[in-house]
Amino acid sequence: MLAYVFGISVLAILFAAYLAWYVLKQDQGTPKMQEISNAIKEGANAFLKRQYKTIGVLAIVVALIIFGIYGFLGKWEYAAKTSIGFVIGALCSALAGLIGMYISVRANIRTASAARKSTAEALKIAMRGGAVSGVMVVALSLIGVAGLFYLFGADPKTTPFMLVGFGFGASFVALFAQLGGGIYTKAADVGADLVGKVEAGIPEDDPRNPAVIADLVGDNVGDCAGRGADLFESTAAENIGAMILGVGLFPVFGINGVLFPLVARAFGLLASMIGIMCVKAREDEDPMKALNRGYYITALLAAVGFYIATMVMLKNAWFFYAGLIGIVTSIAFVYITQYYTEYKYRPVKEIAEASRTGPATNIISGLAVGLECTGLPVIVISLALFFSYVMGVWSGVAHGGLYGTAIATMGMLATAAYILAMDTFGPITDNAGGIVEMSKAPEAIRKKTDRLDAVGNTTKALTKGYAIGSAALAAFLLFSAYMDEVANLTGKAFSVVDLSKIEVFIGGMLGAMLVFVFSAFAIRAVGKTASYVIEEVRRQFKNKGIMAGKVKPDYAKCVDITTKGALKNMILPGVLAVGFPVVVGLLLRAEAVAAMLMVGTIAGVILATVLNNAGGAWDNAKKYIETGAYGGKGSEAHKAAVVGDTVGDPAKDTAGPSIHVLIKLLATVTLVLAPLFI
Amino acid sequence: MLAYVFGISVLAILFAAYLAWYVLKQDQGTPKMQEISNAIKEGANAFLKRQYKTIGVLAIVVALIIFGIYGFLGKWEYAAKTSIGFVIGALCSALAGLIGMYISVRANIRTASAARKSTAEALKIAMRGGAVSGVMVVALSLIGVAGLFYLFGADPKTTPFMLVGFGFGASFVALFAQLGGGIYTKAADVGADLVGKVEAGIPEDDPRNPAVIADLVGDNVGDCAGRGADLFESTAAENIGAMILGVGLFPVFGINGVLFPLVARAFGLLASMIGIMCVKAREDEDPMKALNRGYYITALLAAVGFYIATMVMLKNAWFFYAGLIGIVTSIAFVYITQYYTEYKYRPVKEIAEASRTGPATNIISGLAVGLECTGLPVIVISLALFFSYVMGVWSGVAHGGLYGTAIATMGMLATAAYILAMDTFGPITDNAGGIVEMSKAPEAIRKKTDRLDAVGNTTKALTKGYAIGSAALAAFLLFSAYMDEVANLTGKAFSVVDLSKIEVFIGGMLGAMLVFVFSAFAIRAVGKTASYVIEEVRRQFKNKGIMAGKVKPDYAKCVDITTKGALKNMILPGVLAVGFPVVVGLLLRAEAVAAMLMVGTIAGVILATVLNNAGGAWDNAKKYIETGAYGGKGSEAHKAAVVGDTVGDPAKDTAGPSIHVLIKLLATVTLVLAPLFI
Repeated sequence: MLAYVFGISVLAILFAAYLAWYVLKQDQGTPKMQEISNAIKEGANAFLKRQYKTIGVLAIVVALIIFGIYGFLGKWEYAAKTSIGFVIGALCSALAGLIGMYISVRANIRTASAARKSTAEALKIAMRGGAVSGVMVVALSLIGVAGLFYLFGADPKTTPFMLVGFGFGASFVALFAQLGGGIYTKAADVGADLVGKVEAGIPEDDPRNPAVIADLVGDNVGDCAGRGADLFESTAAENIGAMILGVGLFPVFGINGVLFPLVARAFGLLASMIGIMCVKAREDEDPMKALNRGYYITALLAAVGFYIATMVMLKNAWFFYAGLIGIVTSIAFVYITQYYTEYKYRPVKEIAEASRTGPATNIISGLAVGLECTGLPVIVISLALFFSYVMGVWSGVAHGGLYGTAIATMGMLATAAYILAMDTFGPITDNAGGIVEMSKAPEAIRKKTDRLDAVGNTTKALTKGYAIGSAALAAFLLFSAYMDEVANLTGKAFSVVDLSKIEVFIGGMLGAMLVFVFSAFAIRAVGKTASYVIEEVRRQFKNKGIMAGKVKPDYAKCVDITTKGALKNMILPGVLAVGFPVVVGLLLRAEAVAAMLMVGTIAGVILATVLNNAGGAWDNAKKYIETGAYGGKGSEAHKAAVVGDTVGDPAKDTAGPSIHVLIKLLATVTLVLAPLFI
Repeated sequence: MLAYVFGISVLAILFAAYLAWYVLKQDQGTPKMQEISNAIKEGANAFLKRQYKTIGVLAIVVALIIFGIYGFLGKWEYAAKTSIGFVIGALCSALAGLIGMYISVRANIRTASAARKSTAEALKIAMRGGAVSGVMVVALSLIGVAGLFYLFGADPKTTPFMLVGFGFGASFVALFAQLGGGIYTKAADVGADLVGKVEAGIPEDDPRNPAVIADLVGDNVGDCAGRGADLFESTAAENIGAMILGVGLFPVFGINGVLFPLVARAFGLLASMIGIMCVKAREDEDPMKALNRGYYITALLAAVGFYIATMVMLKNAWFFYAGLIGIVTSIAFVYITQYYTEYKYRPVKEIAEASRTGPATNIISGLAVGLECTGLPVIVISLALFFSYVMGVWSGVAHGGLYGTAIATMGMLATAAYILAMDTFGPITDNAGGIVEMSKAPEAIRKKTDRLDAVGNTTKALTKGYAIGSAALAAFLLFSAYMDEVANLTGKAFSVVDLSKIEVFIGGMLGAMLVFVFSAFAIRAVGKTASYVIEEVRRQFKNKGIMAGKVKPDYAKCVDITTKGALKNMILPGVLAVGFPVVVGLLLRAEAVAAMLMVGTIAGVILATVLNNAGGAWDNAKKYIETGAYGGKGSEAHKAAVVGDTVGDPAKDTAGPSIHVLIKLLATVTLVLAPLFI
């Protein structure tokens, strides 16, 4: 089975290489376009280099601490396996991010160039560029875990530690990648907009704006590298949870139970690859339709793959149904997110209408939508958990209920590579639009990239919904994994997280609070970094030549300032996220930590949904008005909607996505440090 | 002991009568002032009459349902006691609200008139007017419960049902009073501001604005009647929780353990009465100082009373320390709320500074403050729960830990009457300011009422912090009460709420979700009702005579429209709040309901803190700019801050306070309907 997993992973990497080759061989457009694209590339490289240096140093420190803690407890084998797992997890996550970015900053110009000919061609290039990211993330998470198995073998006692280390490594990198990238992208965006659009009155992506390149760089480091690390972590976390459960079911399924998650994931990856190749649009078709078509093909094939894997490895159809529930859940999340963030539907229309009476009513109405939209996702997750658990119970396998939820999670994540490809499609088309605008290409081309860009906004919103849904499902597995681990360590059954105990209730309350305070820190970090950008842009605008279009603004300076600011300001929320669970664990011990995890996850899922969807809805309310509603561009309603859009930016691109990572990090950090809490 | 409780309650009612007499004998100002005051009075009466009619009908239906359910289960004694408890609870709550309002709408003009002479005199009248509300709320909650004991005696089997019915009655009225009042006040406010201030450009409280009287009425029905019902419910809920625990400790303390909460409350009431009489300001002094002085006297006397009650009735000093923790917690909450909502401190200053770059950054910065400010309150509640529990354990009494937290809750609520007096001080001074403005009194008098009004804003914010803190403490008692009750009903020990069970986890998730969706409905209700007001004001403004000041606008029409709108739109969130726990209970049963309660409470405490404090901070950031910072009134920063203030309005005055009520209602509704869930 392991060989099969390796085989598919290697195939996937070859596939990604083919896609990369395909993208890179495309036309690179005019010299003017290349100039802009190169600036973006340089800025992104500079940021990533410094970011991963910072993360690297932090990761080495953490690896040593983990080694030290287990060593101090005299468990040298655990120490070695956990910290090696951590380093491999961190490396794989970083590698996936870097490769994705490498292609993404090269696909943008090729998409822009292709848009001169046809929308369909541009769509294909952008999707294939995004797919490099998507495929690599999933392939590397498979290879990483499979590699650990290959290196150390499957030992029911130490395997969990290895997996847990891997997961923590992935979370750790994801936290800082998402925080740093999220802060960068929104600080640059807010900074560019406030001084450029609002103060100076020049349009978006105007080449006279010194922060415009930083803004375009931000789309890549936030949406591509950040979300890639986020979903890498999701797949890793889900693997861990499911495999640890599989270890517990060793008497029933043997090694098949442990490896099933990897095999199921491999099938999902295969399905995604086929889905990606199927994305072709007719020239006059809504590009979103083409993407949706590919998605349904992927989901269908993933279901077939699931059926084969379940019947061969587990020989129990009930688990297939559980997997199907997961696949259906992912589709439901995609629909719900569309309902709340697309302007075809009531919520966004409501916000747009409220914009007529000014920014205050726009914001109030957006808040109401954000708060309301937590309802359906929570109900869907509840149903998915409940019924997949029931399937597991009906399977007749002892403790099968939890395994049922594990398999539902795998089902939800089966399409991860495809979803991530759609997500990275977002920054590529966004950048393509920017390049077209800045190179002063004709209006007709701009219209084409605008259409793709609008689709990219939708896919970015969908991915966030999907990421939070899968995080919620995976979290329940991680709780069980944590409880298993504590039971193993203490030799006592630990099967209860009793909220009616005072310290457990307090743990839960602190977990929920952490999510809110963390979000506050993340948002404030954007504000601080944006203020550096604002000052710099204002300083440059004092040179009248820039405004007149005679002097080229110093883009690099803005990129540099944003980079430094984002990296500096990601430290405080990052340290809070890692340090707080440790403190709670040391003070209140294992059971309270479990409650912190569970209630923190609930609060996180809900708050992230509020922030992501409110942000998306504000964004599209503005876009809706720009189509001409309520007076269109330049009207009072539009001005009000711009305010909402700006408010939504740090919510949906920094705080929300960082919470996804936070809740998984909470799980992995407590899993790794559990020996300290008992 | 019961006689003693009755004695103090009667004394308190006499005291309230004295205060009412004192207020009513004051000068009523000019005829012009009286005209405005009469309009407010009429509007408030009309609203309350219709509101309580609606609530009355709903309450009768619910009382019959309760009777029916217990009757259907064949438990006729429980049926009678629970539903009679419900009716008495509902009546007492309504009565306290009505009496408070009666004085509040009469104290406003007397405060305005006194402001012509001196600030100190006006302060005294406003405080004493507010105190009628505060004292009556606590006295009636005491008399209600003591009366039930007197009627039915203390029977360990049926007493809990009687108390639970009383608590549910109080919650039920509070929910609709707070929702209806909250929707009314903000719909009128937003409507008046948007058309008056923003569209027509006339100042706040300008007599030409047709919605101005509705706005002034709103302050009374929201802050006075609404918050009064809220705190009535808090004290009732806390009594229930503590007394049910006392029933459990019957073997240790005998009847003293059951009656102790009432006695402790009576002492607190006595302390508050003395504190209220001590409020006197020197003419040149900051009025807030005088109020704080009275508060410290109250807290000190309450501590002394607590010491006597504990030593006489429980004969155990550890419980006194637990009570002391509660008193200290209430002071801590007052300080924390001041820190986050007064413009002397960093958070509000940060928002004001962010206003310089427009409404978007104002909102972002306010959101960050709101999210951040959940940290300290949660930590304080955690510490209070933990250490009062420890005190209880150290007392050596079996199951004393929980009783320790009960006594801390009593400590926190000991000063309730004083806090509520300060709260009702808010709408009285706010109205006084409005009356002065509308009657075109000289600038010097307006300055005096403005000063009092600013203090009123602070005290209103403080009360909300206090209410949510005490709700969090009381909630933990109610959980225990719920578990006790289920154990009694089933005859099986029910001592575990195990979040690691799938249906329990789902229950928790649904509880948290309910809080968010409920808030969305509450905010949307404001939006809807405000839109009726906006249309009406625009309609009236078409008559040019109104703007020219020649034609008197039709205030009554606006009042009427707001009344109908608020009552109509409170139904949906109200039904959600009552119906949702019932549905969850029927589907997922008793243990999941407990988790729904607990996680819902955690989410509620946190979200209410966000909404209340962000709203308060936005409000005061505007006020800070109006003192001249960043360009003062009329500057761009001020315009941005007005947007923030408007956004904060439904957050802090509708959704936030309604959540206080919701979390207590969740507890009481599940307590009453527990027999259905097992």
